[in-house]
Amino acid sequence: MSSSANPTAAIIVIGDEILSGRTKDKNIGWLAEQLGAQGIQLGEARVIADKKQTIIDTVQTLSKTYDLVFTSGGIGPTHDDITTDAVAAAFNVPVIRHPEAERRLIAHYANTDLEFNAARQKMADIPDTAALIDNPLSAAPGYIIGNVHVLPGVPTILQAMFEGLKHKLPGGVVMTRITVQCSTGEGNIATILADVEARHDGVSIGSYPWMKPGQFGTAIVVSGLDAAVTTSAARTVEAEVRTFGADANIVNADGTLAD
Amino acid sequence: MSSSANPTAAIIVIGDEILSGRTKDKNIGWLAEQLGAQGIQLGEARVIADKKQTIIDTVQTLSKTYDLVFTSGGIGPTHDDITTDAVAAAFNVPVIRHPEAERRLIAHYANTDLEFNAARQKMADIPDTAALIDNPLSAAPGYIIGNVHVLPGVPTILQAMFEGLKHKLPGGVVMTRITVQCSTGEGNIATILADVEARHDGVSIGSYPWMKPGQFGTAIVVSGLDAAVTTSAARTVEAEVRTFGADANIVNADGTLAD
Repeated sequence: MSSSANPTAAIIVIGDEILSGRTKDKNIGWLAEQLGAQGIQLGEARVIADKKQTIIDTVQTLSKTYDLVFTSGGIGPTHDDITTDAVAAAFNVPVIRHPEAERRLIAHYANTDLEFNAARQKMADIPDTAALIDNPLSAAPGYIIGNVHVLPGVPTILQAMFEGLKHKLPGGVVMTRITVQCSTGEGNIATILADVEARHDGVSIGSYPWMKPGQFGTAIVVSGLDAAVTTSAARTVEAEVRTFGADANIVNADGTLAD
Repeated sequence: MSSSANPTAAIIVIGDEILSGRTKDKNIGWLAEQLGAQGIQLGEARVIADKKQTIIDTVQTLSKTYDLVFTSGGIGPTHDDITTDAVAAAFNVPVIRHPEAERRLIAHYANTDLEFNAARQKMADIPDTAALIDNPLSAAPGYIIGNVHVLPGVPTILQAMFEGLKHKLPGGVVMTRITVQCSTGEGNIATILADVEARHDGVSIGSYPWMKPGQFGTAIVVSGLDAAVTTSAARTVEAEVRTFGADANIVNADGTLAD
């Protein structure tokens, strides 16, 4: 089974604060895990600047290339939040004041001592024809236009919004991914890995060396869409690395030995 | 002074393990800070898959667009390390066994009980005409070809190698970046921020809301290449947010009050 049967996705992180190094991105890693868990194959992630034409070009390019696109950042109330203007331009539609978004924001701010001023009203403006994504934390919605899912940059809010969204996304076959921990340098077992991968159709084997004081080893990650073939490949890696003379064990996600 | 006077850069993180979510990237954030600290403007970062043609296309596109390109990942000894083949193809040169790289690796492995086998010898193969980047930790060098700087994916090794490299990079005017902590929601002060930015040429103002239990506020980041103009803009934000009726204070990088 080819992994191309699964839906593909790209992530666009929009924000000068990530490119300056001031803020460390947490959304790529979190979304990558979430997408993988439901069989959506993340093909690419880009971090781009708060520049309108850059956002337009990137949204247009990636929405043509991938089944799904997720953006993060730039949908707040301030002047540097230009994602919505750019996404609307990318789809050649106007930005409209969305009545339901406005209703939710009015209700949200009615419960606070914050004024629903012109800046905050901007968060009810979304591209025409877009569908809202609920925001259970701070009301200001994200939205879907075409295959592009527009989410905020603040990780807690992005995560809460994605949790409500993910069951509506097209699913795929979840990748089986098995880790074999080996007590040897990857250079010692490189030939084994290449051979096992070649002998197991649709399986890919990644090799990730690690070290800590007084210890080093290699985490071998065996992945594929066919669970049986992938498991067989992982067991073969385990057996052949042991034959080579090193410790090798299939481990659980928390690092403990698997059965 | 326009920020376009400074050298520009892009980062390419190469690795299926980042796109699967299994490994969280640490190199974009670290390199972003390092580049910013010496006045190199990071314009874009991309995370791409371990696919040869994707690497070729991305290296060619970004090396034409930016003054400097940094890649991370895919230069180890195993079959899934294909960065060097792809970078050589992007520059249309062959991969050669580099004598000095080989000498360093032989010396490194002579001090261990690891064999300098065919897999490890692959780490001495680099694109023809490339110049080595020293690796003080594990000997296997990175390299520079054209404006592309090829580094490993393991953060500690990448960092050690970049420390030796950075003094040779073209420098620029270091961006002045001042944070004003405000005890109010960004929606309350959006107009102030837009106005102050418009009145200070070459200054950009970013607005980053934060919340913790029982507290919320906005970090305003004022940045520009002219230190005096940027400082004046930050002081103006501080004064006008106070006039609005909220607390506002210029803070140091560690969050303590500045003088």
